[in-house]
Amino acid sequence: MEIKNESITRREDDFAKWYTDVCRKAELMDYSSVKGFIIYRPYGYAIWENIKEYLDKKLKETGHQNVYMPLVINESLFNKEKEHVKGFAPETLIATIGGEDKLEDRLIIRPTSEVLFCEYYSRILSSYRDLPLLYNQWCSVVRWEKTTRPFLRGSEFLWQEGHTLHESEEEARHEALNILDIYDTMARDLLAIPFVKGIKSDKEKFAGAKETYSCESLNPDGKALQCGTTHYFGTDFPKAFNVSYQGRDGKVYTPHETSWGTSTRLIGALIMMHGDDNGLVLPPYVAPTQVIVIPIAQQKEGVIKEARLVYEELKKAGIRVDIDESDDKSAGWKFSEYEMKGVPIRLEIGPRDIEKGNVTLVKRNDGEKVTVSRENLVESVESLLKTIHNEMYKKASDFLNSHTYEVHSYRELVELMNENKGYAKAMWCGDPECEKKIKDETSATIRCMPFNQLPVDDKCVVCGKKAEKVCYIAKAY
Amino acid sequence: MEIKNESITRREDDFAKWYTDVCRKAELMDYSSVKGFIIYRPYGYAIWENIKEYLDKKLKETGHQNVYMPLVINESLFNKEKEHVKGFAPETLIATIGGEDKLEDRLIIRPTSEVLFCEYYSRILSSYRDLPLLYNQWCSVVRWEKTTRPFLRGSEFLWQEGHTLHESEEEARHEALNILDIYDTMARDLLAIPFVKGIKSDKEKFAGAKETYSCESLNPDGKALQCGTTHYFGTDFPKAFNVSYQGRDGKVYTPHETSWGTSTRLIGALIMMHGDDNGLVLPPYVAPTQVIVIPIAQQKEGVIKEARLVYEELKKAGIRVDIDESDDKSAGWKFSEYEMKGVPIRLEIGPRDIEKGNVTLVKRNDGEKVTVSRENLVESVESLLKTIHNEMYKKASDFLNSHTYEVHSYRELVELMNENKGYAKAMWCGDPECEKKIKDETSATIRCMPFNQLPVDDKCVVCGKKAEKVCYIAKAY
Repeated sequence: MEIKNESITRREDDFAKWYTDVCRKAELMDYSSVKGFIIYRPYGYAIWENIKEYLDKKLKETGHQNVYMPLVINESLFNKEKEHVKGFAPETLIATIGGEDKLEDRLIIRPTSEVLFCEYYSRILSSYRDLPLLYNQWCSVVRWEKTTRPFLRGSEFLWQEGHTLHESEEEARHEALNILDIYDTMARDLLAIPFVKGIKSDKEKFAGAKETYSCESLNPDGKALQCGTTHYFGTDFPKAFNVSYQGRDGKVYTPHETSWGTSTRLIGALIMMHGDDNGLVLPPYVAPTQVIVIPIAQQKEGVIKEARLVYEELKKAGIRVDIDESDDKSAGWKFSEYEMKGVPIRLEIGPRDIEKGNVTLVKRNDGEKVTVSRENLVESVESLLKTIHNEMYKKASDFLNSHTYEVHSYRELVELMNENKGYAKAMWCGDPECEKKIKDETSATIRCMPFNQLPVDDKCVVCGKKAEKVCYIAKAY
Repeated sequence: MEIKNESITRREDDFAKWYTDVCRKAELMDYSSVKGFIIYRPYGYAIWENIKEYLDKKLKETGHQNVYMPLVINESLFNKEKEHVKGFAPETLIATIGGEDKLEDRLIIRPTSEVLFCEYYSRILSSYRDLPLLYNQWCSVVRWEKTTRPFLRGSEFLWQEGHTLHESEEEARHEALNILDIYDTMARDLLAIPFVKGIKSDKEKFAGAKETYSCESLNPDGKALQCGTTHYFGTDFPKAFNVSYQGRDGKVYTPHETSWGTSTRLIGALIMMHGDDNGLVLPPYVAPTQVIVIPIAQQKEGVIKEARLVYEELKKAGIRVDIDESDDKSAGWKFSEYEMKGVPIRLEIGPRDIEKGNVTLVKRNDGEKVTVSRENLVESVESLLKTIHNEMYKKASDFLNSHTYEVHSYRELVELMNENKGYAKAMWCGDPECEKKIKDETSATIRCMPFNQLPVDDKCVVCGKKAEKVCYIAKAY
């Protein structure tokens, strides 16, 4: 009897259920016995390693250095910057017992590390010659969440957090914007995801920041997902921690601060953006396995041998390739299995292919079959990986464009949001009351005000007063 | 006025003070406001990144996969394996408040993750076809320590922990021994440190393990440092967590488990093993900067330009090179600074060198100066890096050999240990009472029983009874 692949919920039946089905059936993650703390299984963690490798290289190329700060912050230190505390205090995990003794100063498990970096900077910064300080760390952080979803919102998640100090506001803002560009380029070149980029409203900005910039994807269910943020802090945070330096003129100054981060939420973005009813669909350059070699009629003489030669050839060329020779599963089962795991190319090789000197390549993103000659195998595969990446990015961009609507009336806005249509591009007067009304009545939020401010109207979509700011509005995760 | 380099304690005056001086003056780490939780500064963290890169590659080549398990373990789950709990309970950090609410099941910040892996394995293991399971994770762990020292013993440290399951005892033991070999090879090829390897006594083995293997260095102060351990657990731990699988004969079996780890303690080993009174001395292949280019008389025309050409040439060849063009510090200050940081080669280039078509290379490990032609610069530097590595490994090996003493009487043992002479190689009858006496009276411990059991005597060095086991005995960190 053939072993059957487990099936998953269809996207149109229940997108949320489909999502968690894919998370588990593609073996990306598993739940642990503590709610909100997930297990990153090898396949899911390998995706994160590829994201890390790409981003770490870009950050080092732009002069950033990695450090590692403590997992814990004393409560007394944590309480130093009021705005920041207000934002994070309700969702902290607090350790109160160490080595069987009650702790006098309780320890906050870091929800983010602004406090730790600032405290440290206050001790190492002395002269303008030390600036800029461009530090980054890869770690896990804990935010005690009531509602959790794998990769999208967890009580623990993995991320990188950059924390930098600069001489001038201009330089600090440039840093925050430059990092946002690095995130954006990564999304385009590695994840095949187009972002909308812009400035957060005051209400939505990071606790303690002067300005928050964000990049957001638009998922096929019409909801936005904040994928990365960068913050310009001004000098308030450094001031609260007595961070200062001697400037070029010998006087004492407070440096300008930024912080920024992306997290394992990007894995969630990948799943939702590209997945289909057969499971995960991974863009080639972030896929842990780019090609899966499946021998057809593998019991026939010479098939396994040829399949291994193909595998070795691709591996030698630096392509991330795997081979499934297992004899307790049918070829059909294997097809479904690697479709579920989203491997970009399935390479089939059987007696007939061998006879003709061909192999068959099947594209995960659209199921198209291509027969290519063994002679130019590596070139054909490399070229097809590139094609797949471009097709996936185009599909996602087309979706973003066709699901972004210029909106001129509040009624239109409410309708769009109720139907989860995508982004509304609309004018806002800047009044927090109008922003609140949108959220209260549609549960959508202003995702960001794009850098490229091309007005679509001249009055606020909510109150009708004069408005100058174009916003992207959507429901979000 | 010339800026002076800060000086450090001399090793012979106070080895412990010298050690912490180097940790801080070489900018490897800094203290945070929570005792035992250190800040890994860029230079220190870069060393760890090089260790990680080396080891991660070896582990992947041998079939291991990376995962990430939660930071926390519920107390109820943690309490499942009695022996293990007994070992770790006294040094756990416990979170009792999450999101402003008191937690019903308190959360232990992971001191190690056997429990998490076993609980997970119980859910994913079903058939012998799934074995072996070869998982590893890179993370930080917390053990609440009373006495802490940077890198050597901290309440938080960074490490990798491998956790594997196997069909047979033989295969599991082979895994534990094979990983010990990987650690040993890394120490030899990357860290230039020779290890003594062997089996721990029952008293010294890991909480819950059937057998613990360890690799230990011998520092210039005559003390041993445990640098990595691997454990064969047998089936007790998996049994406690109901981990089982269907074997080749259709019956249900419990798998055999191993775990193993190395940590940022290796940075401590590097510092102590190779450092001198001028600071850190880093072996070339683990050094974040292998060559520092220092222009001499840099205000003279053409010097900076030539220095940059040299820098670019080495960089292009893949050598980790840096250049110090700063004009507010003298060349002498720079010499001391990069000596403190242990950069293996200082490359000096000044007007006279340029005229002659030479550069001067100065070896950090022994101060030797070599003049080499610009023409074969890359080859000369690569060859000198290799020479430095070999010299450093030889020096450390010679020290280990000349400070390992065959001991035949208890009096000799006590004398050696009191004088911190190094390793005593002595016979032990296996009686825990004799082991305890050594510890109580000399504060030295049995570090391990080497795999290569060449008896040095036939009676126990403590009680004089018949003895078959050769041990390495030393004081340890």
